[in-house]
Amino acid sequence: MSHTTFEIPTQGQGLYEFTDTVARWVAGEGPMEAALTLIVQHTSASLLIQENADSEVRTDLKAYFSRLVPPSTDPSMGYLTHTYEGPDDMPAHIKAAMLPITLTIPVISGRMALGTWQGLYLFEHRDRPRLRRVMALLR
Amino acid sequence: MSHTTFEIPTQGQGLYEFTDTVARWVAGEGPMEAALTLIVQHTSASLLIQENADSEVRTDLKAYFSRLVPPSTDPSMGYLTHTYEGPDDMPAHIKAAMLPITLTIPVISGRMALGTWQGLYLFEHRDRPRLRRVMALLR
Amino acid sequence: MSHTTFEIPTQGQGLYEFTDTVARWVAGEGPMEAALTLIVQHTSASLLIQENADSEVRTDLKAYFSRLVPPSTDPSMGYLTHTYEGPDDMPAHIKAAMLPITLTIPVISGRMALGTWQGLYLFEHRDRPRLRRVMALLR
Repeated sequence: MSHTTFEIPTQGQGLYEFTDTVARWVAGEGPMEAALTLIVQHTSASLLIQENADSEVRTDLKAYFSRLVPPSTDPSMGYLTHTYEGPDDMPAHIKAAMLPITLTIPVISGRMALGTWQGLYLFEHRDRPRLRRVMALLR
Repeated sequence: MSHTTFEIPTQGQGLYEFTDTVARWVAGEGPMEAALTLIVQHTSASLLIQENADSEVRTDLKAYFSRLVPPSTDPSMGYLTHTYEGPDDMPAHIKAAMLPITLTIPVISGRMALGTWQGLYLFEHRDRPRLRRVMALLR
Repeated sequence: MSHTTFEIPTQGQGLYEFTDTVARWVAGEGPMEAALTLIVQHTSASLLIQENADSEVRTDLKAYFSRLVPPSTDPSMGYLTHTYEGPDDMPAHIKAAMLPITLTIPVISGRMALGTWQGLYLFEHRDRPRLRRVMALLR
């Protein structure tokens, strides 16, 4: 059993892949069978397992969720009360409620049991650059 | 390894924090490194990790999801067929599909590895008072 | 500790129950206390814990998410760029981001700790028949 923390720098809204970073750490712990739990320690970012083949998928995911949860300055969001931390703040909390903050992934023989086209992403919901902490537990 | 069940009374739709209840139970099991799995044993409530600093965030989360999934009496929801358990019933199932029903949280030295602003909430989607069961497994 | 893979055939969009298949495998592993982790190894299908009593609930869930995320041929989705794998492809990725791809369920005395009305479903988001792989880890 072991744990670590990954720090992922972000440059505005979008999906940031960190599959290889996690895979290297998991492999370094030995060829075990285990459960890997990840948690993003923030309330305005998410963790996604998504297609890693075509970058258009990430572009479209970002576009879809930006429309489903527009900035608080959008007329359709006029009912929001938590607006003083910027127009991207409350929508970021909403997206962080709707999309996963924790993931658990089986590890078999020291490798994450992901499908062929699955990659691991941090989905940043804020506009400004951030350094995001993701804790990992392997046991 | 141990498990328990928390009972959380609710008074209509909204977010109910129970971070301290869980933290006390986890601490009482000893200073271990473990994975904590929570599951809400209902199909009309969710579990959220969300900001615990400003109650406006919870108000706005409730407001957003009430608009995204309006009552089945709303004209936009006229295609729904499962309506005889009340106008809040099928929307509650939809929200319970969209928002987490299970969470797994790393525990380090007997404490949940949550970020500074993260709290643990039961999100009630029904209108009438309920007693909600959340099972916890620590291992 | 053990693991297996379930193969679930699907015939277009909708919810496919596989509670009994998983329950039988878990029971066969002995009367243990454990955490069961499931992961669907695809980026266009999801795993749901949902009501197993009334099939109208599944009909309505499918209808709701089909409207929330319409086919890419729908005028409201004209901004999508990843459209050449069919009108159901990018909406499938969006639904697979929004709805769970992994679930962890406590197992007590060899039985999944689900509520009375909770069943386990694969939610298929593509139109054509598929064979979906769900890996399970018990530990």
